[in-house]
Amino acid sequence: MIVPPALEDIDSAEIERRAAVYGPLADAVRDLVDATIRTTVDDDTVRAVAATIRAATARLRESQIEGGFGIRYTTGGVPMPWGNAAIGLRNAVAPPLHVVAGADGVHTAEVELGAAYEGATGHVHGNVCALVLDHVAGSAASHGERPHVTGTLTLRYRRPTPLGPLRARARIERTEGWKTFVTATLADAAGVTIEAEGVFIVPAWARSRLER
Amino acid sequence: MIVPPALEDIDSAEIERRAAVYGPLADAVRDLVDATIRTTVDDDTVRAVAATIRAATARLRESQIEGGFGIRYTTGGVPMPWGNAAIGLRNAVAPPLHVVAGADGVHTAEVELGAAYEGATGHVHGNVCALVLDHVAGSAASHGERPHVTGTLTLRYRRPTPLGPLRARARIERTEGWKTFVTATLADAAGVTIEAEGVFIVPAWARSRLER
Repeated sequence: MIVPPALEDIDSAEIERRAAVYGPLADAVRDLVDATIRTTVDDDTVRAVAATIRAATARLRESQIEGGFGIRYTTGGVPMPWGNAAIGLRNAVAPPLHVVAGADGVHTAEVELGAAYEGATGHVHGNVCALVLDHVAGSAASHGERPHVTGTLTLRYRRPTPLGPLRARARIERTEGWKTFVTATLADAAGVTIEAEGVFIVPAWARSRLER
Repeated sequence: MIVPPALEDIDSAEIERRAAVYGPLADAVRDLVDATIRTTVDDDTVRAVAATIRAATARLRESQIEGGFGIRYTTGGVPMPWGNAAIGLRNAVAPPLHVVAGADGVHTAEVELGAAYEGATGHVHGNVCALVLDHVAGSAASHGERPHVTGTLTLRYRRPTPLGPLRARARIERTEGWKTFVTATLADAAGVTIEAEGVFIVPAWARSRLER
């Protein structure tokens, strides 16, 4: 069962301090993931680097939480979804996505997807494209206020999406009760590669709070 | 445009040698990704580890390929999709998935999804579940012979999928020309969490080869 988010009683200065410690570590690991795929150094160097990585991991594991990071909020309501597979500041699997809400209601994410997100040669894996579109469309649906879950998401692949810099855009088309209908696109410099339509739903645990 | 796979003239011994060099490196990086999310060591240790990681990455980058790894085959027809975001031996973003084809036509993947794949607290991100189901269903559709792309994939989320050991299963329901209809499930120890139906299509570049 999905539980409401955990709360931590910390202020914005403490959030910034933590982000400044953990963000650069995750960025370094993202860069390592890319280099691990693309390196052509000799075998002995690969083995030596692997040993270094294992030792670094052991240092981090000297003290750690049980299980996943979870979605955390401060008691002041600031979200810290730092373990999230799409947007996690501390998660090197996440690109990560940063969604910007425009004054016109259009939510946008600029993202560079490199070798770690490849499917067909030179192109972004279709499921990674879906993750990006789902997240940006979901952000538009919630517009920072209403939590949501994805009801349906339909993608039309107009052409393969090349690795490199991409832009996702999403906006609300209409809202019916707890359902929000959103359209979104993924594009490279040459134009749209994928069109998406999604229905997003306010989860039961959030409805009573929103009704108050 | 999606291109046919690149060919490399190497034998099975050379494939095994490369897998034995690069597989352990990517495994070490996967473990580091998990530790980066979950660590609670002091800030100075985090900073020191980040510096170590950056130095390790620089060693790997002393010699590297341009762009992504791509899908490679040996001239003997053995696939090496080692950069792939779902199954890549060299890609620490990939869980990675290993699909086993049963004699009964059921394709199965056992996978442990930890902190790096989290969405809602304690649960696998919905898009990661979709990636797993898409890949296993696609493998069933191609049954090792016919390349395919996903036409549609429809998911029914019966309940949230917890982090931990999971099993995906898929099988062909029927085939119509270049279209193959597949059903699949994702399950934890307590039973099915997601049901999926997909239509998979043989891409144009593979049809002429299959017709010969």
